[in-house]
Amino acid sequence: MKIVKVSGEVSIKRSVDSGSEDQRQAVKKILADVRRSGDEALKAYTEKFDHVRMETFLVEPEEIREAYNLVDESMVQIIADAAENIRAYHEKQLRPSWLTTEENGTILGQKVTPLDSVGVYVPGGTAAYPSSVLMNVVPAKVAGVKRIVMVSPPGADGKLPAGVLVAADLAGVKEIYKVGGAQAIGALAYGTESIAPVDKITGPGNIFVALAKREVFGDVDIDMIAGPSEIAVLADDTANADEVAADLLSQAEHDTRASSVLVTPSAALAEGVQREVAVQLAVLPRQEIASRSIEDFGAIYLAADMEEAVETVNQLAPEHLEIMTENAMELLGKIRHAGAIFIGRYSSEPVGDYFAGPNHVLPTNGTARFSSPLGVEDFQKKSSIIAYSEEALRENGAKIAKFARLEGLEAHARAVEARLKKN
Amino acid sequence: MKIVKVSGEVSIKRSVDSGSEDQRQAVKKILADVRRSGDEALKAYTEKFDHVRMETFLVEPEEIREAYNLVDESMVQIIADAAENIRAYHEKQLRPSWLTTEENGTILGQKVTPLDSVGVYVPGGTAAYPSSVLMNVVPAKVAGVKRIVMVSPPGADGKLPAGVLVAADLAGVKEIYKVGGAQAIGALAYGTESIAPVDKITGPGNIFVALAKREVFGDVDIDMIAGPSEIAVLADDTANADEVAADLLSQAEHDTRASSVLVTPSAALAEGVQREVAVQLAVLPRQEIASRSIEDFGAIYLAADMEEAVETVNQLAPEHLEIMTENAMELLGKIRHAGAIFIGRYSSEPVGDYFAGPNHVLPTNGTARFSSPLGVEDFQKKSSIIAYSEEALRENGAKIAKFARLEGLEAHARAVEARLKKN
Repeated sequence: MKIVKVSGEVSIKRSVDSGSEDQRQAVKKILADVRRSGDEALKAYTEKFDHVRMETFLVEPEEIREAYNLVDESMVQIIADAAENIRAYHEKQLRPSWLTTEENGTILGQKVTPLDSVGVYVPGGTAAYPSSVLMNVVPAKVAGVKRIVMVSPPGADGKLPAGVLVAADLAGVKEIYKVGGAQAIGALAYGTESIAPVDKITGPGNIFVALAKREVFGDVDIDMIAGPSEIAVLADDTANADEVAADLLSQAEHDTRASSVLVTPSAALAEGVQREVAVQLAVLPRQEIASRSIEDFGAIYLAADMEEAVETVNQLAPEHLEIMTENAMELLGKIRHAGAIFIGRYSSEPVGDYFAGPNHVLPTNGTARFSSPLGVEDFQKKSSIIAYSEEALRENGAKIAKFARLEGLEAHARAVEARLKKN
Repeated sequence: MKIVKVSGEVSIKRSVDSGSEDQRQAVKKILADVRRSGDEALKAYTEKFDHVRMETFLVEPEEIREAYNLVDESMVQIIADAAENIRAYHEKQLRPSWLTTEENGTILGQKVTPLDSVGVYVPGGTAAYPSSVLMNVVPAKVAGVKRIVMVSPPGADGKLPAGVLVAADLAGVKEIYKVGGAQAIGALAYGTESIAPVDKITGPGNIFVALAKREVFGDVDIDMIAGPSEIAVLADDTANADEVAADLLSQAEHDTRASSVLVTPSAALAEGVQREVAVQLAVLPRQEIASRSIEDFGAIYLAADMEEAVETVNQLAPEHLEIMTENAMELLGKIRHAGAIFIGRYSSEPVGDYFAGPNHVLPTNGTARFSSPLGVEDFQKKSSIIAYSEEALRENGAKIAKFARLEGLEAHARAVEARLKKN
């Protein structure tokens, strides 16, 4: 892991796969086929890509029961505990509809309404993460979404991983379909004979899923399209090099394109972490992935002082930020851009990935400059409320009509005056 | 205006211009030129499209002073009053950062941070609306955005409309550039010698502006891309046909592709509105636009009863909804999908377009199913906060490690255990 002195602007080396033209065309064709042929297209593409012939897609209750038998009891309890923590945290995000009243009778406000229906994509294979199920479904549930649909590609045995099914059941999903890829996104967006369409699609997926989500966006809403995972650790002399290194590697093991960065004003820590990363890498099961990630996208930034270090973090706008410094809490106000902020040495990133309660779906690729973690608000929408009284319109109607005429919109002015002329 | 009996699913006839391949290519070229040549490209494209040679783009203080002289004093006061109402309403949307604490020392929360910088696009020519300046700038200001930049294409005289400049000044914009089109979007997204880049771009524009926003999305954030304006009026026998007709026409005069719809269980009102629309159309300055809009995208839906009428409105998910019925307030809970809801006969839509306070930037094209009016939250983002104590990690660390191993992520488990092994 290279140590680099900070000078001027710094940016994480990032690698976002935005897909090839061939992939885009393939996705367009799949979506068009699903729109045209519905379930038949889903069956054909499932056979082609997942190597299994499905006659129906819905997960039956006995498959859920079977899944519980396949996951050990203490693990079921851990998933349930995590779901409960995620629920408790997201309930704090709930905001009510509100109204203001004025003496002249005016009422203004905002009505908060859950989305009618949401589809959650869950990747298959080795990327089948029960934690991802919880992080996408629980906020939708807390938001009050009535219909939550989950889709995930079946294995060669025509089944879904037991952990995923248990997490879905604990999170309260009642409608799960064994279909994945761009074809599943097409089914969620446009509907087929067996899958009714939804209003929003969330959840991670491979490049075909990402391209399909981008393609259907507008017809339905989508969540952000996630890039490779990132961590920045902001640390000083008080941090332990082995712990910092372990956290950097926990990010690096995700993906060869994941980015792990340390920012520190301490040369001693920089060298210590450099050493520890090498030591720990040597004995890591996913060593191959993690070492490529560290080599290609990892860095240790040595700053002149803590102020420069903080400014560097803001330039990076990392998905995850850990602060391991003396008085870490005091730095919180200086951090402008980060998806999630982990404070102190006991807040290792996996605490947030799995268990503490905040969402692990976070803005990547520098988008923490303008984006937020997935949350309850992503599953609700607002409507403005305007109720003017006769008194209020008599007070302000002439001003409104004049403003409309300034903009050349005579019918606007007349609509207001239609009320004022009377009585 | 045709009267149609509701039967089964109803959807507004909508016409969204998503641009041609030629337009897309033209926009890509403009953006690439701006990235490469900066101000020189801005000058060249301004000369080409706006027919004026600009040596500098920044609006100088004397141009603002001149604008105040060109707008009559009472109009300046009306714009100021509107700005104040918009400010007061949007301040109600402000939500603080929050924290929760647990006895074991855990702190969880959410930090709310304004965006660093925002660019507001204001269209030129006949679509130069001071109200649009207020509706985009004031929420950003209330959110706490430090740098708000406005761009708008200059007229042939190299100037911006006085009303737009006055609105910008009253809303508190300090940085205004006379440049428009896709080239202005390129400047905001990527920066040039004279215009520093921003983090988010909002505001309406023609098809080239819309395509450019779509293109830069990801590098910067954008607001929704608005389709033609829409109104649905939900009314019963208690409504006045002339007022309903006036409101439908105030929408129709915007654009030949605007959509104006009445939904009612009253055959008498349906016929009355049909008559009134014809009468009022005949004497409307923008008659040509409004009559094409009414003919192509207008409709009167006759429902069997109020329940069916409400369900029809929810299927339409209109941008604007007016409710003119007995006990209009009681229907509020049944409305699931609408950008803004205007209640009672005195809440004619222009009240909200200009003056009451809620935002007039609203979801169009059925996206009220999943989108919200522009608001303060669009100019802020959130960061999760996670601070685990040693006690909390000792309590939960083993569970977290086990969850990580279920997902095959050994380095995650080890990062947690690195802390637990010690002491």
